[in-house]
Amino acid sequence: MAIVLGGNRYGKAEVRLVRIDRDGEEHRITDLNVSVALSGDMADTHLSGANDKVLATDTQKNTVFAFARDGIGSIEDFALRLARHFVDSQESIHFARVAIEQYSWSRLAVDGEPARHSFSRSGDGTRTTVVSYDGERSWALSGITDLTVLNSTDSEFWGFPRDQYTTLPETKDRILATAVNATWRHATTDDVDWEASYRDARQNLLEAFAATYSFSLQQTLYAMGERVLQHVPGIAEVRLSLPNKHHFLTDLTPFGLDNPGEVFYAADRPYGLIEGTVLRDDAPPAGPAWD
Amino acid sequence: MAIVLGGNRYGKAEVRLVRIDRDGEEHRITDLNVSVALSGDMADTHLSGANDKVLATDTQKNTVFAFARDGIGSIEDFALRLARHFVDSQESIHFARVAIEQYSWSRLAVDGEPARHSFSRSGDGTRTTVVSYDGERSWALSGITDLTVLNSTDSEFWGFPRDQYTTLPETKDRILATAVNATWRHATTDDVDWEASYRDARQNLLEAFAATYSFSLQQTLYAMGERVLQHVPGIAEVRLSLPNKHHFLTDLTPFGLDNPGEVFYAADRPYGLIEGTVLRDDAPPAGPAWD
Amino acid sequence: MAIVLGGNRYGKAEVRLVRIDRDGEEHRITDLNVSVALSGDMADTHLSGANDKVLATDTQKNTVFAFARDGIGSIEDFALRLARHFVDSQESIHFARVAIEQYSWSRLAVDGEPARHSFSRSGDGTRTTVVSYDGERSWALSGITDLTVLNSTDSEFWGFPRDQYTTLPETKDRILATAVNATWRHATTDDVDWEASYRDARQNLLEAFAATYSFSLQQTLYAMGERVLQHVPGIAEVRLSLPNKHHFLTDLTPFGLDNPGEVFYAADRPYGLIEGTVLRDDAPPAGPAWD
Amino acid sequence: MAIVLGGNRYGKAEVRLVRIDRDGEEHRITDLNVSVALSGDMADTHLSGANDKVLATDTQKNTVFAFARDGIGSIEDFALRLARHFVDSQESIHFARVAIEQYSWSRLAVDGEPARHSFSRSGDGTRTTVVSYDGERSWALSGITDLTVLNSTDSEFWGFPRDQYTTLPETKDRILATAVNATWRHATTDDVDWEASYRDARQNLLEAFAATYSFSLQQTLYAMGERVLQHVPGIAEVRLSLPNKHHFLTDLTPFGLDNPGEVFYAADRPYGLIEGTVLRDDAPPAGPAWD
Repeated sequence: MAIVLGGNRYGKAEVRLVRIDRDGEEHRITDLNVSVALSGDMADTHLSGANDKVLATDTQKNTVFAFARDGIGSIEDFALRLARHFVDSQESIHFARVAIEQYSWSRLAVDGEPARHSFSRSGDGTRTTVVSYDGERSWALSGITDLTVLNSTDSEFWGFPRDQYTTLPETKDRILATAVNATWRHATTDDVDWEASYRDARQNLLEAFAATYSFSLQQTLYAMGERVLQHVPGIAEVRLSLPNKHHFLTDLTPFGLDNPGEVFYAADRPYGLIEGTVLRDDAPPAGPAWD
Repeated sequence: MAIVLGGNRYGKAEVRLVRIDRDGEEHRITDLNVSVALSGDMADTHLSGANDKVLATDTQKNTVFAFARDGIGSIEDFALRLARHFVDSQESIHFARVAIEQYSWSRLAVDGEPARHSFSRSGDGTRTTVVSYDGERSWALSGITDLTVLNSTDSEFWGFPRDQYTTLPETKDRILATAVNATWRHATTDDVDWEASYRDARQNLLEAFAATYSFSLQQTLYAMGERVLQHVPGIAEVRLSLPNKHHFLTDLTPFGLDNPGEVFYAADRPYGLIEGTVLRDDAPPAGPAWD
Repeated sequence: MAIVLGGNRYGKAEVRLVRIDRDGEEHRITDLNVSVALSGDMADTHLSGANDKVLATDTQKNTVFAFARDGIGSIEDFALRLARHFVDSQESIHFARVAIEQYSWSRLAVDGEPARHSFSRSGDGTRTTVVSYDGERSWALSGITDLTVLNSTDSEFWGFPRDQYTTLPETKDRILATAVNATWRHATTDDVDWEASYRDARQNLLEAFAATYSFSLQQTLYAMGERVLQHVPGIAEVRLSLPNKHHFLTDLTPFGLDNPGEVFYAADRPYGLIEGTVLRDDAPPAGPAWD
Repeated sequence: MAIVLGGNRYGKAEVRLVRIDRDGEEHRITDLNVSVALSGDMADTHLSGANDKVLATDTQKNTVFAFARDGIGSIEDFALRLARHFVDSQESIHFARVAIEQYSWSRLAVDGEPARHSFSRSGDGTRTTVVSYDGERSWALSGITDLTVLNSTDSEFWGFPRDQYTTLPETKDRILATAVNATWRHATTDDVDWEASYRDARQNLLEAFAATYSFSLQQTLYAMGERVLQHVPGIAEVRLSLPNKHHFLTDLTPFGLDNPGEVFYAADRPYGLIEGTVLRDDAPPAGPAWD
């Protein structure tokens, strides 16, 4: 029996980069959290501590800031630029994975007019991407997180099996709430309109959530993924992780009161967690980008 | 020397209450975090564990849910109802403090129309109140938190003293960003239009932040408080706690690049923390409500 | 009616300072989070943005690091050194408040021997201090936080009043758990053995928690404060904020099982929050240091 | 092109279970966070909302509490009992994954003696397991998290490549600190002494961290994994995710001071993130348990 080095990667995580684009007095803000992970010919540093093939994570951070000087554009493109740079410029680096979170900001108003350089963080969800590059091919995931949604009706849950540990009553009307964690895989990284794709994917996720009369969160999940695939070109697969944020109807009968679907207790833990994939049957292989 | 009991209070904290108001198919959501703190004749339970004067915190929680059955209205009014109930119904309770956070939600859209019962959490800030009642008088604070704002220019910082530990260069153009924590004190709890007051206070805080050409965050703080006092009737005092969320211009010269106010590093810690009070000189005494 | 500036302070918060003391191969680690708040003649910067009296928060940060070069000692002494420096060296600064958190570390072992320069973060609680200085007098608070404790028995809760909203059953055996937040006020800042005082206060808090057969968390709170005052010289007052971390006995009867005090659900929210003060009747006035 | 359902799973996450074992006055505490994820014949609920094959997550939660009534034992065994139950009792469930976190507690002391039923949360790290079962075979991972360690010397970093974005100076003495996230894979789930295995794996991780004179965190990572494989029987593979918690030596020269490795700034973000696998070359296939 011998002991060997298996899969490994390393990089600088959570580089908090803000770029201001100035068009005269009119500014735009891009607020990112960039994480780089590189892998390749890294046996030496693991086995002996020889670092001649280890591009320092500090250098990776510098590269992120320096590349931002030329503008950022869509986060998918910025991630691709970075990933290609690391692999193409360093012989020892064979694979790069760049993950970016983009925080959303809204323009403030002054005297009823949109402010030119004043902003507030908005609750529109955090846009995400994970891009990979192996020296020849590239893969891109896009997604959204930090997006909490709630339907106050049009949700039922009944007909589930009842074993010896089942006490949950069936319900024909409940609150359905979740914090959307969605990731979608693009069929290609060439000639994608990343901005339109994100805007449309987000919009279709929300429309499907709102419009689905739901018998299970799984059904809602599938509807959300299906709608994205139907309406947004170039997306091959959608993965969703949806916590079921339970809102329990409080029992007011001890106080002589009814509760016709009005007063709820919002629970923290435990919560249901529903995870699933919806994909096109002609989707290309996933590549290394999913993890 | 004897050992004695000093000030004390107790209660149920963080009751997560969601109420759905149903007007046919059109629903409204009220999402609250309610914390009750009661004080009074509590020596026995501290000294001997006799609980005959201790309204259980579980009972306080039940009361919050039961009172919500009748509707919530403004959080200030709901807090006042609760505070008065605890003091007026329990001989041993002489003082009640009820603090509420209200999370903001936006209505989703379906096919371009506002959804009737589908919502998403918004980034408009968390509305807060702290209400106190002593059996005769009541006091109310209102406020906002979780509201991050940024000016990408119109902020300078220079002219500060330079002692032996000063290395900071002066700047004529920097990013000014903060997470607004504001609390304002109402002159009275009678006949206040809490909804209008909150809406106008929030709006004036944002307008002042955006419109102030700033030489220090203290100046911006004062302008924010002053503007609320000028424009929102019935507010006697404004307290602001504003972290200076530093955005440092990155030095790109090692890479042969300039950086004309475009690429920034958003730091986590340490941060400046600017706290101040702006008030009317005829403000009534603050009462016990501030802490 | 005029609008005026009220109380205000400013400073650098959360300076994360680690100092290594090297005694040959034997190292010691001091891991701190330092927050400075200064006040004084600050009207100008609020009203006009003139900063000639504003010692930059960046300078404050530099001062913290520079002072650490001479060694830190007890956090109370380090805070006093800093507070006195800011007030005594800057004419415009009339009052300084320095708050420090100290994270606890344990020495690792190698081959059964204590390591000389290897450590792990321990769960012994975070030590805290808040020191104030007004140019003449100084005040010191010390404390502990991040210390979660649990008694699995010897806790009852019964005899509480039952109003129309009371449903809680009485219990003669429950889990009592809390996260200790304790602060104690020293009668003087002169000639205090801060290390012994902290060690003894911490120990007596834990002993009182463990040894008190409890009929209410208030009773436990008082016993904890009383014991510190009885056993630790120079402490005039103890303030405790104790969340009642509820552990609910799960109802297993639907599954044909009893539950003799064995299986519990640990709830997050809501929680009881018990806050109280225990003091010596000859305690000097509190001074400005408590808030 | 058709749209199809891909991989999916669902379950109750973060069931906070505390069990007290009572041996007369002497109690033991087991404090767990249990998450269940089930998969199988779940197309119906996704496509039509028919739930006749969906064991409710509420039922899963009940099962966790009910099974705890019989005792918990090692978390790996408890997870295996639960996983087998779900798959073996529900025809539609073909695969179960049970993840458990176990929080560590220490026994308090009273009068110098170990308390019989009083505990404090300790900083010894959180023990974890992830167990999988497919109806025939089972797989087990064990691990540790929440374990922050630091070497104040015996760490160098130099010899790394210098490209146009490299500014980091080489160093022959730095602080090396990380928060250990380790997971190890057992070759089998039969006849494992889980307690001894965990204790020994944890101890060897810490010894290797402390004893390795390090030229890169990768080298330390490999040494930690290697040592576990060498000393703990039955472990086939170790995966480590180690954030490089940077401690930067502060530049005190502007203040006329040197800094001989004594005063550091502990940074939050960005941080290096080093991830790697060390395994035996005769390790059996990983099975589905890793993700």
